[in-house]
Amino acid sequence: MSEPFRTTQRVRYHECDPQGVVFNANYLTYFDVTMTELWRELGGYQAMVEAGVDMVVAEARILYRSPLRFDDEFEAEVEIARLGETSMTAELLLARGGEATAEGELRYVFIESGAGAKAPIPEAIRDGLTRYQTLEA
Amino acid sequence: MSEPFRTTQRVRYHECDPQGVVFNANYLTYFDVTMTELWRELGGYQAMVEAGVDMVVAEARILYRSPLRFDDEFEAEVEIARLGETSMTAELLLARGGEATAEGELRYVFIESGAGAKAPIPEAIRDGLTRYQTLEA
Amino acid sequence: MSEPFRTTQRVRYHECDPQGVVFNANYLTYFDVTMTELWRELGGYQAMVEAGVDMVVAEARILYRSPLRFDDEFEAEVEIARLGETSMTAELLLARGGEATAEGELRYVFIESGAGAKAPIPEAIRDGLTRYQTLEA
Amino acid sequence: MSEPFRTTQRVRYHECDPQGVVFNANYLTYFDVTMTELWRELGGYQAMVEAGVDMVVAEARILYRSPLRFDDEFEAEVEIARLGETSMTAELLLARGGEATAEGELRYVFIESGAGAKAPIPEAIRDGLTRYQTLEA
Repeated sequence: MSEPFRTTQRVRYHECDPQGVVFNANYLTYFDVTMTELWRELGGYQAMVEAGVDMVVAEARILYRSPLRFDDEFEAEVEIARLGETSMTAELLLARGGEATAEGELRYVFIESGAGAKAPIPEAIRDGLTRYQTLEA
Repeated sequence: MSEPFRTTQRVRYHECDPQGVVFNANYLTYFDVTMTELWRELGGYQAMVEAGVDMVVAEARILYRSPLRFDDEFEAEVEIARLGETSMTAELLLARGGEATAEGELRYVFIESGAGAKAPIPEAIRDGLTRYQTLEA
Repeated sequence: MSEPFRTTQRVRYHECDPQGVVFNANYLTYFDVTMTELWRELGGYQAMVEAGVDMVVAEARILYRSPLRFDDEFEAEVEIARLGETSMTAELLLARGGEATAEGELRYVFIESGAGAKAPIPEAIRDGLTRYQTLEA
Repeated sequence: MSEPFRTTQRVRYHECDPQGVVFNANYLTYFDVTMTELWRELGGYQAMVEAGVDMVVAEARILYRSPLRFDDEFEAEVEIARLGETSMTAELLLARGGEATAEGELRYVFIESGAGAKAPIPEAIRDGLTRYQTLEA
């Protein structure tokens, strides 16, 4: 049975704005850090790039539920909702003490490192991702 | 006849990442700067906050078309796609030399300054926004 | 005998620029995160602000020794070089695997929360800081 | 007679923190944007990098005088205080309505693009910089 990948982060002072809450763009940064940690478990982002495959974000979506504030510790969860030939969609959830603060989606396209041409997801990465794939009904 | 609101921006070095392109979260920052300029024309964001009404982003969506790079100058366009009682949806387009680099949507909820309760969009702001409202078919 | 306060951090992707290294301004962000962790040990920054005392940076100095890169883990050390009535100077060192990557200094002035007037460093904070004070010869 | 190089910038919302003022690290970002504009006048940073010479910050110093706030427009001035064989020191001043908000210094080292070895400042750049060099007494 599939489980989301989980990691923990903490809000930094400079990520908050004069409203006293995390600035809206920084949730995408938290999503990115979450994906970095998932990638670490799959062998590392840098290793994949050096092996010739890189990835770019093609689409992002964020629903803001409840604002994060300075020094809040939160859990980030990610599941792979769609795993294509050269693209994938990750679903992310940020929660503080069990309460959702933001959720969203990132669609990635895999490309040849340093170039624009699409590239197939490397087999080892694909195998690793299936562990976190959303079960279809 | 309705026209989008337009403003021009330029990519700064620190907004670019090791791929040599603007980091994905920074497009939301460009969206935010665009909205600040629209708000300036409507009387200023700070003036609205001091008059008791603030706004928060409830949802964001971005489609990445073609990467922006260091020092690129680009045009940002915004139209109001939906103007509700206490919320609105803005549609944004970033283009460089006539070519779309990113487009997206921001849904805002208006609240009482310093509080969480929803607040009606101030009349003067609403009147100003209708100038940039997407014409319905 | 006095010891520096130590904490560990990791470089995030968006903190790096097209040169492939951490953008120069972000070392000040690492300094800030280091001070947040020191403050946590002294009772928490937010608690001090709510008790009526805040702090602002009056001066900063950074020497860049060797660039940090994406995903580098580094140790941050801080010592208090000067502890005045309403100000203090912190000396910071960032090192990766024992090699200095950056060092610097932050001079802080303590003020009344939400106001500009200088305020004495709270006694409990001062006591805590002496633990990390540089021994004078 | 030498004159500083001058440019105008405006504070963005996400550059401000919960104190309602620009976060300390972002003054280095304003310094960087100022240098980009100076470099534009000297032929462009990107052109210099493509011609084989890049530059890195070796040392930075900032004195915070009076906080900048959201939407503040400010003037940035830069003078070249020292012009060596492979390095230079720029002195920067940020002012709002004639009042200094921050001043500082950036020491740059010129290097071969993509490598670490020091490189002489290109002649055309050096000639351009002398226009903004501080007159010695």
